[in-house]
Amino acid sequence: MRFLFAILICLCACTAKAQDHPNLVLTGKGVQSMQASLGKVPLFDQTLAAVRAQVDAEMASGIAVPVPKDLAGGYTHERHKQNFFMMQKAGVLFQITGEEKYAMYIRDMLLTYSDLYPTLGKHPAERSYARGKMFWQCLNDANWLVYTSQAYDCIYDWLDEKMVKKLNTELFRPYAEYISVENPQFFNRIHNHSTWGNAAVGMIGLVMGDEELVNWALYGLDKQVPGDIVKDNDGGSIQLKGQKEAGFLAQLDHAFSPDGYYTEGPYYQRYAMYPFLIFAQGLANKKPELEILKYRDGLLIKAVDALINQTNAAGEFFPINDAQKGMSLGSRELVNAVSMAYFYGGNDPQLLSIIAGQGRVPLNDSGLAAAKAIAENKAEPYQYKSIELTDGAKGDEGAIGILRSGVLTLMMKYAKHGMGHGHFDRLGFLLYNGADEVIQDYGSARWVNIEHKDGGGYLKENTSWAKQTIAHNTLVIDKDSHFDGKVRDADETSGTPYYFSSGDDMQVVSAKELNAYEGIQMQRTMALLEIEALENPLVLDLFSVQAPEGTRYDLPLYYMGELMSSNQEFQMKNNLSPMGKESGYQHLWLEGESSIQGNAFRMTWFNQKNFYTVTSASREGDQALLTRIGANDPHFNLRRDAGLILRRTDGNTVFASLYEAHGRYSYSDEIPVNSFSSVSEVSIMHESADYVVLSFELKDGSYYLFAMSQNDAREGSRHSLQLASQKLEWTGSVYFSKRTKE
Amino acid sequence: MRFLFAILICLCACTAKAQDHPNLVLTGKGVQSMQASLGKVPLFDQTLAAVRAQVDAEMASGIAVPVPKDLAGGYTHERHKQNFFMMQKAGVLFQITGEEKYAMYIRDMLLTYSDLYPTLGKHPAERSYARGKMFWQCLNDANWLVYTSQAYDCIYDWLDEKMVKKLNTELFRPYAEYISVENPQFFNRIHNHSTWGNAAVGMIGLVMGDEELVNWALYGLDKQVPGDIVKDNDGGSIQLKGQKEAGFLAQLDHAFSPDGYYTEGPYYQRYAMYPFLIFAQGLANKKPELEILKYRDGLLIKAVDALINQTNAAGEFFPINDAQKGMSLGSRELVNAVSMAYFYGGNDPQLLSIIAGQGRVPLNDSGLAAAKAIAENKAEPYQYKSIELTDGAKGDEGAIGILRSGVLTLMMKYAKHGMGHGHFDRLGFLLYNGADEVIQDYGSARWVNIEHKDGGGYLKENTSWAKQTIAHNTLVIDKDSHFDGKVRDADETSGTPYYFSSGDDMQVVSAKELNAYEGIQMQRTMALLEIEALENPLVLDLFSVQAPEGTRYDLPLYYMGELMSSNQEFQMKNNLSPMGKESGYQHLWLEGESSIQGNAFRMTWFNQKNFYTVTSASREGDQALLTRIGANDPHFNLRRDAGLILRRTDGNTVFASLYEAHGRYSYSDEIPVNSFSSVSEVSIMHESADYVVLSFELKDGSYYLFAMSQNDAREGSRHSLQLASQKLEWTGSVYFSKRTKE
Repeated sequence: MRFLFAILICLCACTAKAQDHPNLVLTGKGVQSMQASLGKVPLFDQTLAAVRAQVDAEMASGIAVPVPKDLAGGYTHERHKQNFFMMQKAGVLFQITGEEKYAMYIRDMLLTYSDLYPTLGKHPAERSYARGKMFWQCLNDANWLVYTSQAYDCIYDWLDEKMVKKLNTELFRPYAEYISVENPQFFNRIHNHSTWGNAAVGMIGLVMGDEELVNWALYGLDKQVPGDIVKDNDGGSIQLKGQKEAGFLAQLDHAFSPDGYYTEGPYYQRYAMYPFLIFAQGLANKKPELEILKYRDGLLIKAVDALINQTNAAGEFFPINDAQKGMSLGSRELVNAVSMAYFYGGNDPQLLSIIAGQGRVPLNDSGLAAAKAIAENKAEPYQYKSIELTDGAKGDEGAIGILRSGVLTLMMKYAKHGMGHGHFDRLGFLLYNGADEVIQDYGSARWVNIEHKDGGGYLKENTSWAKQTIAHNTLVIDKDSHFDGKVRDADETSGTPYYFSSGDDMQVVSAKELNAYEGIQMQRTMALLEIEALENPLVLDLFSVQAPEGTRYDLPLYYMGELMSSNQEFQMKNNLSPMGKESGYQHLWLEGESSIQGNAFRMTWFNQKNFYTVTSASREGDQALLTRIGANDPHFNLRRDAGLILRRTDGNTVFASLYEAHGRYSYSDEIPVNSFSSVSEVSIMHESADYVVLSFELKDGSYYLFAMSQNDAREGSRHSLQLASQKLEWTGSVYFSKRTKE
Repeated sequence: MRFLFAILICLCACTAKAQDHPNLVLTGKGVQSMQASLGKVPLFDQTLAAVRAQVDAEMASGIAVPVPKDLAGGYTHERHKQNFFMMQKAGVLFQITGEEKYAMYIRDMLLTYSDLYPTLGKHPAERSYARGKMFWQCLNDANWLVYTSQAYDCIYDWLDEKMVKKLNTELFRPYAEYISVENPQFFNRIHNHSTWGNAAVGMIGLVMGDEELVNWALYGLDKQVPGDIVKDNDGGSIQLKGQKEAGFLAQLDHAFSPDGYYTEGPYYQRYAMYPFLIFAQGLANKKPELEILKYRDGLLIKAVDALINQTNAAGEFFPINDAQKGMSLGSRELVNAVSMAYFYGGNDPQLLSIIAGQGRVPLNDSGLAAAKAIAENKAEPYQYKSIELTDGAKGDEGAIGILRSGVLTLMMKYAKHGMGHGHFDRLGFLLYNGADEVIQDYGSARWVNIEHKDGGGYLKENTSWAKQTIAHNTLVIDKDSHFDGKVRDADETSGTPYYFSSGDDMQVVSAKELNAYEGIQMQRTMALLEIEALENPLVLDLFSVQAPEGTRYDLPLYYMGELMSSNQEFQMKNNLSPMGKESGYQHLWLEGESSIQGNAFRMTWFNQKNFYTVTSASREGDQALLTRIGANDPHFNLRRDAGLILRRTDGNTVFASLYEAHGRYSYSDEIPVNSFSSVSEVSIMHESADYVVLSFELKDGSYYLFAMSQNDAREGSRHSLQLASQKLEWTGSVYFSKRTKE
């Protein structure tokens, strides 16, 4: 019924051509306002000048619309991609400057596309579960339409009616149908691919006044996905278990948690934010009655804030799940997103400092407003928060915990798996000192769009190494990855948040993982402890596990930098062999090993300009292994990064470590400062399923106790433990205090 | 006679105490001028504020003068080092601000030293050929005196006569004697160690009016070096062959070439520049009749210019010979040197941009003048030159050639060995793209002053790896280093400059090495070629060698970054073994190898943000080896850097390669540009002892010939060669032109 109604509307709308464009991302009123501001708002003017220079240079080199042939990174792929970026920018330039050459450029290019498109079958590359026509996958076809529909909106009223009709019927409607009704396995998912598809079809629908397309976009297709396509190229399921809905609103319902966290992680959230927000902006303009920006308590604006909080001091996203390192708040998607969040989200002056750092603004109402406010010196520093971002549509399927203090940022992950782009990394963590990685997450094994590397797509080492548990800073049991490396099983559960606090002297994140290994319970508690004698907070790490006797534990630590020294003697290998045959071990060389002597393992390394030390409580039989990534890597797809593995065979046990960031050294003054650890002793005073108590002593003689109630996190609960020669009593989940040593 | 006269002067001078201090680095007039400028010259004021904050903080923590015990990096070493830095700064602060607390701080510290010093024997660490008392080596004792004499000069007139006498007789004169007459093997060399020793003794002599010390400093000791000490800790000879002179003037005569190049290379030149210049400044003030800054045609000022030219775009010195990477124009030594060069060397406005980049100035006349000129906007960009810097006291013992064009900087080394700090790297090269290393020199295996790493001194891998030929981008023959790794033999000869030109379209450096391997002649010609179709100059590399049949050649290339692709299939190793037992091969893992198919080897890599490709002409039997540094490295002293080795067994032969810097990629926009090589073919058209002709073709179809006359570099010589189907005729050493392909 909804369907029929939409078709009727369309029949009317598609024939009329009212003078109401642009009205998708730009509006007539907004354009007037931008024109009136020219020469008065530096950041806006700079962006405009840069965009004009770029488009003029492209226009000078002529129009090229080659027959599609290549994968990502190849000529035809990159050419069509460049074309849609340029058309979108040219459209904006036409509106702001009124110079017709920009409109003519778009028109001529679109006519060329309308000649080519009807001649195309599926793209010749057969790699995708949803092959496109212009590109190797529908996803990129959708990218094209999201940008091109904006260009089309900008020249719609300028074109004559005949040409509009031709483009609508010969190019855009068939294009939209191909990536929707002809490829429901692409369009009807809950996935970033479909977000692009929904936005593309919806946006061109808004431009053409084609309500059928808009309805498909908003509510999904009333159409079954073909039964023979059940997985995408990344191994993700086409249909989520129990999925009943599809379309843009369903994406909003399912893809984000109430905190704005996106289950695939920040790298893909960044990617998906563009279609989410740009379509939302079109809907806000054309269908204000939807109140899309208020949907789910202003979810889209919250999501931008969540993204900003998932970055290091250089604005680079945490590279969890499939993610190329270095992607940052400076990306084109975030340039649009942060200004939108500023404009539609209450003019938060802290966002202005992020926008100023981006160095450019979107050429629309949001960008103008932000640039004006920056010119008026309204920007305030962004206050990064210690924050727990829940995962799952209802916020009850795990989370990530971010602790920040001084220069340190710690992130622990106990979220959902993240579908096809997820990594088997439950209870993994990463640590930054400002912009520098201290403990790294490997990221994905991929060189995005770089044709040299298998066409720029995911490399097979992404599965064989980057997704495996041993590639992460978390516990590997019996040399097998979490969930035995099965995405489907991992997708069914999430980590379990246990405790999160962000006080002044102590910040704590604690979570459990009960499903990754059958019959085994794991809990990790990490804390940033402010200790006056230390220049930076001390990072505490308690990994406790309940498992049968004889379990083999490997706890990797991917430290970044050069090993300075250790308190252990390592037996270095004179021949290197891979450490195993599967689960990622086949990619690790064993460089050296040590049977740990004494009751603590210590290692200091140096990175960029600072020293770092890990000190771990150890017991007889513990081993330390020094590893190097790169075995079984025939095409040099992996970085040769170092790692440390603490290995133990035991039943129930606790791994307890302290990480220090200390001192500095510059290559131009060559004076090392505070290059040694301040921790003289670390020791586990108590361990059981219910409690762990850790003591440590600093070189200045001060002595500290940290205690954790692992099965009762209630604020008012009272705990009491008999230690060797004293009774420890406390209230609430965590106890931490300076003490007199017994 | 000279000696006796000096003693007589001393007897008079030492008893009187005229009010004529400060007059070493500061002067009364200069101090007045600085005082008058306070608050008016931003860079000077900023430096003063920073120095004051630093000294105030140190003073607040009290005076510590521990009994010497540690090596570099250890507490007592670093404490005494910090003390002399602080005293020197406090002296300047006393003079400029007139605040007596700074004078009292110096006085109290000196009195503590004068109590301690007479009680000391040699430093307990026995590692040095010339053990100090305050530090493990006389070198550091000399450092202390160079700085402390400046502090002493600043408070000399403020102290009462009795105290001056006490310090002169109980501390400074014995101190100066210890590092001179008691350690002639340290003081009487031609070496950076002795430069420090000479300056230290001379400067305290100038302050105390002790002409005997000044004469020792200027002219050396009339004393034999003990016969049982013939080598220093780095394997350098204590006395150079035929060395007759010593002292500061002899250092100036022997250590520098007429171009201001220092035979140990820029890292040590930087280190030696401080005592050279600061003592020279004292001499200019106290003994203007010496005209020390005009000595050898203004050598000391030229040397600063030579140093500036030996840097990448970040101001970091080329890490040739023993050198820690990252040492730069920002170092304390250069902060003093560049301002001095500005002040005493004719107020070159280009130096001001370097000084502005340093962000601080020395607190003296030079620094004030430079800061004032910067405040008056007189700074001009420094024009880095393509330049050949000769080596050897007379400029006839080899050279280094530096070619610059656009973003590229290429340096080829065919200089003297560089004594104990030299590497076996004749005809080696390095290449930068701006500040990024493209082809790296490993530098030294040392973490300077970092105690974790064997006390911060040279590591044994410095000899077993970093100095060896295989660690450099130059030809290794029969797996043996140049000169069989013998410093003494290497020191006897130098490379032979053959041709150097820095035209607009083509810049060329060519040199021969006739001594490194007995009976073998090597010649390398490198060029930067401007080709319109390419975004950066093309780097050409012809390595020709005349040697017996059956010679095994290894030509390493230490590319920086991640391997993207190759036109060859590599057989990757599943077990890694060291590539040899000696000459540095014991530190290389062989990761993969390839028997090169076709007539060209190609490999593309990515670093930071750019792509690079090497294309090498190859012939049947050639091999390409992919290596990784790190074997036989029990303490992780070596970086795990990658390398490529081209291997060939032949007689007379030519290695011909082209290096391209092309394209770009950013992790935040993920759009690769120009990621593939533009070279489609490279081929050797002719090779003989006299000539090499190389042809290459680009993908746009353009075709080029490069020809080199290898035994006649005269400008007017005419050359004629019959190639396959054409006759090539040219005048002068080098021919390069675009041609029609035959």
